[in-house]
Amino acid sequence: MPSRNISKSVVKRLPIYLRILDQLIRRGVEMISSKELSNESGFTAEQIRKDLAYFGAFGTRGAGYNTVFLREKLLKIIGLDSITDTIVIGSGNLGTALTRYNLTKNPYVNVVAVFDENPELIGKKIDSLEVMPIEKAPGIIKKYDIKVCLITVPANAAQVVADLVVKHGVKAILNFAPAKLSVPEGVHVHNADLTIELQSLIYYSSAEEERLERLDKEAKDNKSRSSKSFSYD
Amino acid sequence: MPSRNISKSVVKRLPIYLRILDQLIRRGVEMISSKELSNESGFTAEQIRKDLAYFGAFGTRGAGYNTVFLREKLLKIIGLDSITDTIVIGSGNLGTALTRYNLTKNPYVNVVAVFDENPELIGKKIDSLEVMPIEKAPGIIKKYDIKVCLITVPANAAQVVADLVVKHGVKAILNFAPAKLSVPEGVHVHNADLTIELQSLIYYSSAEEERLERLDKEAKDNKSRSSKSFSYD
Repeated sequence: MPSRNISKSVVKRLPIYLRILDQLIRRGVEMISSKELSNESGFTAEQIRKDLAYFGAFGTRGAGYNTVFLREKLLKIIGLDSITDTIVIGSGNLGTALTRYNLTKNPYVNVVAVFDENPELIGKKIDSLEVMPIEKAPGIIKKYDIKVCLITVPANAAQVVADLVVKHGVKAILNFAPAKLSVPEGVHVHNADLTIELQSLIYYSSAEEERLERLDKEAKDNKSRSSKSFSYD
Repeated sequence: MPSRNISKSVVKRLPIYLRILDQLIRRGVEMISSKELSNESGFTAEQIRKDLAYFGAFGTRGAGYNTVFLREKLLKIIGLDSITDTIVIGSGNLGTALTRYNLTKNPYVNVVAVFDENPELIGKKIDSLEVMPIEKAPGIIKKYDIKVCLITVPANAAQVVADLVVKHGVKAILNFAPAKLSVPEGVHVHNADLTIELQSLIYYSSAEEERLERLDKEAKDNKSRSSKSFSYD
């Protein structure tokens, strides 16, 4: 089979479709059209149909998609049809929050171990897990065949940690450190950057129209100034 | 001026462009084409030109964009040309991590107060801030004219907290609670859902091609079974 070259943005939308399907199924909805999926998700119906068509023909013209069937297909496509074991490296506030969150809230992911290099944090209990020294990470990665790792260490330690886990077989890193990681081909890094979310929210926090009008006015003023200088110079 | 109807997805890309420009400027790059911005961001050059054109004509045909000029425009467009004061509600591990992160790492956002309703957490120090009782939130929102709020409380408390802050003037919420918030028109909620990031990463953690091939095979098997039943029934 030729490589499909499915883009990152398609892959990022799949879990969003999955979440919507979960909600629809809980509400007892059996069939859904791409138009309705569009209303729920904010993506266009065309985009949704195109995204899903990469993976197969899951809908019926006129009737739409069967929610339970499409959900099951999506679980298989994403790789969530079995639980994914993962490790967290960095047991500070964020690492602790993520470990707790995953242990209790996420049915698809299981945090099997948390590591730190700070002797004061080693041995600390996070729910049922005890923070382990980073030196034990290679053994745990091997034992549980870990492919996914969450990194929540400070920026200056992130690359060393990434190198270590990749060396021992990790293929996917969710990086919370504000550092750009370089990894070999075939390894994927997602940077969970809360700054981006926060900044796009700030866009909406003050009067959007007012701000954009001011910008328009500035542009016009500059234009008239520069056309003046053109005609006089 | 007519409303521009700028979509959420455009707004979410703006901070990404901003971050790339920050990096380019640090590297001493003065001009950048939309093609190069495409390489850096992963969005198509066409998409980038279209996004920026909503807000004005910032580039020069052939030469591209001046990095410093475009960065300044983007700061104004997003509303980051002055520091945004914000509050964090929920002082658990995630709230603490976000407060620390924002206090130290984010030049555009300033956490002015952290609130909790748990008496055991009230008074706890997070760097220079002391966790305050939730009852004090309305006063602080008024005093600092807070428009942006981060919610990191448990799911069952999130709606009550949202109602409270919106009632007192908050216009934008970054919600970390795994709960869907309902807010009046004109108030924006972004759900910072780490599950989505993690799930799309899991897609890459196991052999993508192998999994998709298996799915293709299943589909073919189903098809041949159903065409058989069609011809016999």
